Amino acid sequence: MIQKPRGTRDFLPEEMSRRRYVEDRLRKIFRSFGYREVQTPTFEHLELFTAKSGESIVNEMYVFRDKSGRELALRPELTAPVIRMYYEKLKREPKPLKLFYFGNCYRYDRPQKARYREFTQAGCELIGYNSDLYLAELIALAYNALKKIGLNDIELRIGNLDLVSEMLDKIGVEERIRKEIFPLIDKKCFEEMKRTLLEKGFSEGEIENLENFFDCNELEELKEFVDNESVSNFERILSYLELFGVKDFKVDMSIVRGLDYYQGLVFEIDFPFLGAEKQICGGGCYELLSIFGKETLPTAGFAIGFDRVMIALEETSFSFPDDRIDVYVIPLGGEFLGYSIEISNKLREKGFLVDIELGGREIRKALRHASNIGARNAILIGKKEFSEKKVTIRNMDTGEQKTVDLDRALELIK
Amino acid sequence: MIQKPRGTRDFLPEEMSRRRYVEDRLRKIFRSFGYREVQTPTFEHLELFTAKSGESIVNEMYVFRDKSGRELALRPELTAPVIRMYYEKLKREPKPLKLFYFGNCYRYDRPQKARYREFTQAGCELIGYNSDLYLAELIALAYNALKKIGLNDIELRIGNLDLVSEMLDKIGVEERIRKEIFPLIDKKCFEEMKRTLLEKGFSEGEIENLENFFDCNELEELKEFVDNESVSNFERILSYLELFGVKDFKVDMSIVRGLDYYQGLVFEIDFPFLGAEKQICGGGCYELLSIFGKETLPTAGFAIGFDRVMIALEETSFSFPDDRIDVYVIPLGGEFLGYSIEISNKLREKGFLVDIELGGREIRKALRHASNIGARNAILIGKKEFSEKKVTIRNMDTGEQKTVDLDRALELIK
Repeated sequence: MIQKPRGTRDFLPEEMSRRRYVEDRLRKIFRSFGYREVQTPTFEHLELFTAKSGESIVNEMYVFRDKSGRELALRPELTAPVIRMYYEKLKREPKPLKLFYFGNCYRYDRPQKARYREFTQAGCELIGYNSDLYLAELIALAYNALKKIGLNDIELRIGNLDLVSEMLDKIGVEERIRKEIFPLIDKKCFEEMKRTLLEKGFSEGEIENLENFFDCNELEELKEFVDNESVSNFERILSYLELFGVKDFKVDMSIVRGLDYYQGLVFEIDFPFLGAEKQICGGGCYELLSIFGKETLPTAGFAIGFDRVMIALEETSFSFPDDRIDVYVIPLGGEFLGYSIEISNKLREKGFLVDIELGGREIRKALRHASNIGARNAILIGKKEFSEKKVTIRNMDTGEQKTVDLDRALELIK
Repeated sequence: MIQKPRGTRDFLPEEMSRRRYVEDRLRKIFRSFGYREVQTPTFEHLELFTAKSGESIVNEMYVFRDKSGRELALRPELTAPVIRMYYEKLKREPKPLKLFYFGNCYRYDRPQKARYREFTQAGCELIGYNSDLYLAELIALAYNALKKIGLNDIELRIGNLDLVSEMLDKIGVEERIRKEIFPLIDKKCFEEMKRTLLEKGFSEGEIENLENFFDCNELEELKEFVDNESVSNFERILSYLELFGVKDFKVDMSIVRGLDYYQGLVFEIDFPFLGAEKQICGGGCYELLSIFGKETLPTAGFAIGFDRVMIALEETSFSFPDDRIDVYVIPLGGEFLGYSIEISNKLREKGFLVDIELGGREIRKALRHASNIGARNAILIGKKEFSEKKVTIRNMDTGEQKTVDLDRALELIK
């Protein structure tokens, strides 16, 4: 039996209508902040993703060849594609350029709870900004957008890869070793980090020092580890957040992000209730333009894990608008079909969702069908209704039934 | 230089906003007819697509293997995936089941004008119907939806594969030969069909007879070729169309559809202005459920080529709503930033699209930027505005400028 591929999902009508609802709300919010939507292809040349992250990422991607033998990959994320598009098409646009996207991404790992091989990301990219106020606005946008769509219990954590770098420089952890320990830090596996560093010859004292640094969640504490000026600079950016309505966040030095193009300020947003899958958004400053040439520009962005947001909303018992159809029209005989279709079309013109019985079910069965498909109302059209140019409307929840003219029926449906 | 893969496209903000606009309108129309949206994975097991169409379709698809060695394919169309989903998840739903989708599809052929390797389809599937009235409603939905979104100059052509089959039986064209000539008929290459049939030993007379059949566009003419009863049955279905508001269509026996699962009534909708790429919708009755077992149910559907619809709308100079931002807020000094952000957020709450100058541009440059990004209005906030709790609003099209309170500004922006 042919089934859907492992780790992928089908979205049935009810879930799909909820997803579209949340997508629309996020889209409206992004747009209201001057961000504009773009879309890139589902697959890209493999090099786009390996250029910064190295060949190891290949194992986590769906890779295939085109007829001329070039390697293509289903996109694992959308930041690199958007920057590629910027470089190909939007370089001359006024800065800062504010773009957003909704798109499916692909990851070739073991399917687990809330981790799928095909998943949806929604994100914003801020390209070419000359003030950290823009960066603060971006972080606030991610945070406030998630609050606004109904996720009140979220936590914003902010880190700084420049400070991490400064600290690692101080202890003498070189690039090669960083690549090994960053994924461990990202997953908060500090025991494993310790083991790795011990093997590389670092002392217990150095490692403890590093662990204490990653444990910091106060700016003051950070000053014990890195340069005062670096901390003040970080502090300044954080102080901007309140201007944009973000009063509550944590400093978290252990945010290193899974992708290799981040630098400077980074942030993550959690919905703690989801446990191991609590992270619903991640972002920060990054550098990808160097893939395409000498040009560099400050760039920052974030991506929201749309599927986890949906799970989080379900967990909070968010009340989604229901998607029941408004009216099921039942012609009580073929001779009333024309009038029934006319009524259906008039209701649709008014914005209602209308289905019509065309299979000749007799009244009892037709009403049962109306109830099975979740219609709010049924409209019955027989001899009397047809000759008097009226309709009989039945509220499917209460069973109340009235014969009225169409205008009155419209009011009853509302 | 890494560029986008051949045959794929980037959608920039202006085009993207038009696409979302049309997508939303089509979605509303499908929903208003009781259809409900679903989504399936971007890739499926290869067998899903080869089961009915045979191995030859593999050359036109993007195929790759997963880690357990199973062959996957980027979907070339969405009907088979929707039926697969129906069989896995929706079998017990009340019938008829009305589903619609928007999704990207993939085709591995030579990129040409209006033919891309990644393209978007919008479609409806009608599963399990017991009256041809439902079929007529489905055809009418495709036709009227395209009219309603602004494509007035479209042509509906309706064919019937049962009649084609009957005719081919009569002449003795067997299954194997049909597979060869159907793609030729689909592309209206009748000369090539003739050559092929001559090679197979058919007489000039037989072939002429067949050509005359494919040329038919009147029901009466058809009676010369096939059984009267078959024609009457076809006529009856066509007569239903007027009930659903379709008064204008052509009978076209040469519609055989490119996919091998169609049977019975088939139809295509053209936007003739697009020449060789004029076909913007195709559909009909099909049989796919037998892939999954013995179950059969009448199923029908259509797919709209969303990209061609967009091209067609551009050709008709359709007036899309513009996506300019409503207001660019300019604080005339850092001390007015807080108030400027407050004003921006209030405007956003009212549904306006608002961007704000955070880079400290002086007034002339900030206004030039507002104009460069296409803002309708600028709001200037300096000492006077701040102390009097007012704003200075400038209409960027007329240059008119006024200092007013926020409520008045809201009216001016509308």
